Amino acid sequence: MATQRKGRRSFALIDPPVITAWANVAGKKESEGPLRGTFDVTSNDSYFGQKTWEQAERHMQELALEALINKAKIQKADIGLVLSGDLLNQCIGSSFTLRNTDIPHLGLYGACSTMAESLLLAAMTVGGGYFENAVAMTSSHFASSERQYRFPLGYGGQRTPTAQWTVTGAGAALVSEKGKGPRITACTVGTVTDLGIKDANNMGAAMAPAALSTIRAHFEDLKVNADDFDLIITGDLGQHGKDVLLTLAQREGLSLGGKIADCGCMVFDNLKQDVHAGGSGCGCSAITLCGELLNKLQRGKLKKILFCGTGALLSPTSSQQNLPISGVCHAVAITGG
Amino acid sequence: MATQRKGRRSFALIDPPVITAWANVAGKKESEGPLRGTFDVTSNDSYFGQKTWEQAERHMQELALEALINKAKIQKADIGLVLSGDLLNQCIGSSFTLRNTDIPHLGLYGACSTMAESLLLAAMTVGGGYFENAVAMTSSHFASSERQYRFPLGYGGQRTPTAQWTVTGAGAALVSEKGKGPRITACTVGTVTDLGIKDANNMGAAMAPAALSTIRAHFEDLKVNADDFDLIITGDLGQHGKDVLLTLAQREGLSLGGKIADCGCMVFDNLKQDVHAGGSGCGCSAITLCGELLNKLQRGKLKKILFCGTGALLSPTSSQQNLPISGVCHAVAITGG
Repeated sequence: MATQRKGRRSFALIDPPVITAWANVAGKKESEGPLRGTFDVTSNDSYFGQKTWEQAERHMQELALEALINKAKIQKADIGLVLSGDLLNQCIGSSFTLRNTDIPHLGLYGACSTMAESLLLAAMTVGGGYFENAVAMTSSHFASSERQYRFPLGYGGQRTPTAQWTVTGAGAALVSEKGKGPRITACTVGTVTDLGIKDANNMGAAMAPAALSTIRAHFEDLKVNADDFDLIITGDLGQHGKDVLLTLAQREGLSLGGKIADCGCMVFDNLKQDVHAGGSGCGCSAITLCGELLNKLQRGKLKKILFCGTGALLSPTSSQQNLPISGVCHAVAITGG
Repeated sequence: MATQRKGRRSFALIDPPVITAWANVAGKKESEGPLRGTFDVTSNDSYFGQKTWEQAERHMQELALEALINKAKIQKADIGLVLSGDLLNQCIGSSFTLRNTDIPHLGLYGACSTMAESLLLAAMTVGGGYFENAVAMTSSHFASSERQYRFPLGYGGQRTPTAQWTVTGAGAALVSEKGKGPRITACTVGTVTDLGIKDANNMGAAMAPAALSTIRAHFEDLKVNADDFDLIITGDLGQHGKDVLLTLAQREGLSLGGKIADCGCMVFDNLKQDVHAGGSGCGCSAITLCGELLNKLQRGKLKKILFCGTGALLSPTSSQQNLPISGVCHAVAITGG
């Protein structure tokens, strides 16, 4: 397969890798939301039958990988490489999932941009001929995230209007050299963009500048514009971050052509489900892409999307040290199968 | 550039990417050890002029990147991509280093295997023609690690004989399509290997089975053996982990030909510097590779090494939940320039 560098941050895949299968796992709240019916596995038990929420998150990745293998009609031993990461400290959701599976694994950390980062690296890996196929995977869990980043749930802290609700879910996509399915045609790697936001309850605002920077770079590097896409889908700015993105784009004169949608605004009914500004977490864009979006690309209901994974680069330690929150956004252009 | 898949876990680089420059930064204890004189930047201040140890770690990466740019005689804008990660929660050492630099960045998490993981991905990226060059970088800091993984330093907890001392340091390597320097000829991706070790103070034992698995896979996939290398260098098992590796190899009949060395056993004088089983942390193999080892490859004192980055996949949460510690090991074969 050939590739072609495009501009500073982008590359096109001349012989585009194919997303031959995808699978997702979602929690109770997610399976009651607007995307119900697009999930392969759901559970009403926030522990997914495990002893702790962290182990529940690991188990969701296991279930996503299992569902993916079944849908792709392959064996575990047929998987070339798994590229995955999550929000838990030291990415234990991902590493414990791969434990003793004998599947080659590279661990990633891209905060909530991880689904896009893993997909981009899977495209690179397969496009470069290093592995015949690669799985891009990630997860998040509301309860494990809350107690790690904010407060223990039992504390019952109030949430601000700009706060987002971490999605409980996992998604996995199989990227292959050959086969049928949506194809990855080009990618743009993110840069770490920081406009000085310090409010850990307003991560949408922290990520919006990175999203704008990456969308602009993709347009310029690939010589495309909003008209070339059915959807430019960020994941996940939430309602406030999406508003910031639209305002910034207008101010800077970048036409987004009314094509912006955000996974954080699709996964829940923000008002009825009381999630304030919308969904977040690695699992948010993962379950939206590895269900709703890829299904629609497969069925021809979408022809081409720009999937823009956005991540807020902070930790509880950096917040305690009064440091700002940087954002990053990686973009993957996907055309229908 | 062409690549060739080799076996389940490996690939060769037919037109091998070149490590055209490398740089490292080390703390006081490291600069008093056996590798003194191989560091580009050292400091007697554990804070590196910053307010906190986490920010000191970030600053070490900044200094390593700056030294790398100077040694390579390039500008920041000439860097295609930075692949980096660290041990801090949510990899804030790496993301804060790249903040507003306008350099494309992909975040990694491979625990102490991160130098090898980033080098392997840099080789993939450059070898596949996606970017003209890529920087592989990582760091660790004794004080930020201790308080995150074990106890606050002020607690004065006793250390066990199998404990390793996290290296305060950062290393960076520039991998390019063209130029002069040591070349990356082949890589083997790790699998997550877990024999059930639960002692967070004996990470060498947890990582040794992964090292063995990866060295064996590299030998089999590339049809090479210990005689093909001047050194097979693990980073970082420490003295106990190295002993476990040698014992396991002997038991399983894999000849390592007396070629095993370990970054954790090279970076400190274990007895005189009171570090118990040796050095550890992402920075350990990073400062050893991006100094001593690449210098020797450059000068012809080493002809070919297998650089095996080993990582212990745990978090304080997984230890508290009584989960075992998995290991992973990625291998990168490097020949002299």
